[in-house]
Amino acid sequence: MITLYDYLDSGNGYKVRLLLTQLHIPFRYVEVDIMRGETRTPEFLAMNPDGRIPTVRLDDGRLLAQSDAILWYFAEGTPFLPEDRYARAQVLQWMFFEQYSHEPYVATPRFIVRHLPADDPRRGELPQRLVRGRAALAVMEQHLQSRSFFVDGRYGIADIALYAYTHVAGDGGLELEPYPQLRAWLARVAAQRAYVGLLDRPPPC
Amino acid sequence: MITLYDYLDSGNGYKVRLLLTQLHIPFRYVEVDIMRGETRTPEFLAMNPDGRIPTVRLDDGRLLAQSDAILWYFAEGTPFLPEDRYARAQVLQWMFFEQYSHEPYVATPRFIVRHLPADDPRRGELPQRLVRGRAALAVMEQHLQSRSFFVDGRYGIADIALYAYTHVAGDGGLELEPYPQLRAWLARVAAQRAYVGLLDRPPPC
Repeated sequence: MITLYDYLDSGNGYKVRLLLTQLHIPFRYVEVDIMRGETRTPEFLAMNPDGRIPTVRLDDGRLLAQSDAILWYFAEGTPFLPEDRYARAQVLQWMFFEQYSHEPYVATPRFIVRHLPADDPRRGELPQRLVRGRAALAVMEQHLQSRSFFVDGRYGIADIALYAYTHVAGDGGLELEPYPQLRAWLARVAAQRAYVGLLDRPPPC
Repeated sequence: MITLYDYLDSGNGYKVRLLLTQLHIPFRYVEVDIMRGETRTPEFLAMNPDGRIPTVRLDDGRLLAQSDAILWYFAEGTPFLPEDRYARAQVLQWMFFEQYSHEPYVATPRFIVRHLPADDPRRGELPQRLVRGRAALAVMEQHLQSRSFFVDGRYGIADIALYAYTHVAGDGGLELEPYPQLRAWLARVAAQRAYVGLLDRPPPC
């Protein structure tokens, strides 16, 4: 059985939990407490030298890291990833947008607000990060003006990658009220079959 | 013919130039001056709402952004991208590592040093970014202890993605002397057929 090393409040880990659940792939969920340095132990670094969750151990023991690479691996050959070459490149375009232009400015503020003390110096990063976070949300809002989902008119892993931190952007100070298309898309994602929430702890198996 | 909207000093753009050259795919090179705001004009934003180079216009007019997504699109079906499902996911794992854990800490210091004035407040970001840059280089060094290239023992787009800013990391203050495996790998990449340098301006075509 697959093992998912993860931290419940991580949107990056949630992407993988959501896809595996929607694909009906059972997995063993192992909580790694990032706030207690459990991704920096010698044991964890031997699995993933970059020291990050989510990390997946496949049935045969092989390891895979980086949430969006894990999504791609499991979505291959399923309706969550299109077959057309250009559409597949668009999925990657949006996933790289997510990791480069969105996650540091939408997810990191949420992390700072929820997990760091009130006097942590990293709180000084918030104003600049939120400016860029709004820019990322505006790019998404514009794209959704004429589309139901991010690529190919169909729900897939580009949506999962972008949904994970967008739907909780308010936790970090990014209110979604100015983005009606985005809010309608969030509702469409949350209405998908076998949807689970970010803080829904996976059942033991 | 393909059009590549790019900026010569960009390592992200260079990735695409290097792959297209090595694949013998001719392209029209259009310089967009990021320092003069040319990626923020209404014309450019109509092509790529995220306002970034590289952006590619394909033969049929369709557009594609994000350097690593562009690499994937053109490498598909060539020896630059393996066919095995797990190996392909590893390519993505390294490309997402590059954009998330490497580029902001290896490329951005180089940008700050080369392009911003001596009294720019962003220079204050350098110490913290360089700490993380060294961490990224150490992850690469460790991976290369037992490997010639990043995935599958063969030169491919994961190497191109990581090479682009690593080989000029010194420009931003990250000396490569402590990383012998990394330096040997850089030499192997630079010895590949049809190699071109970062600042080699593409010929008019």
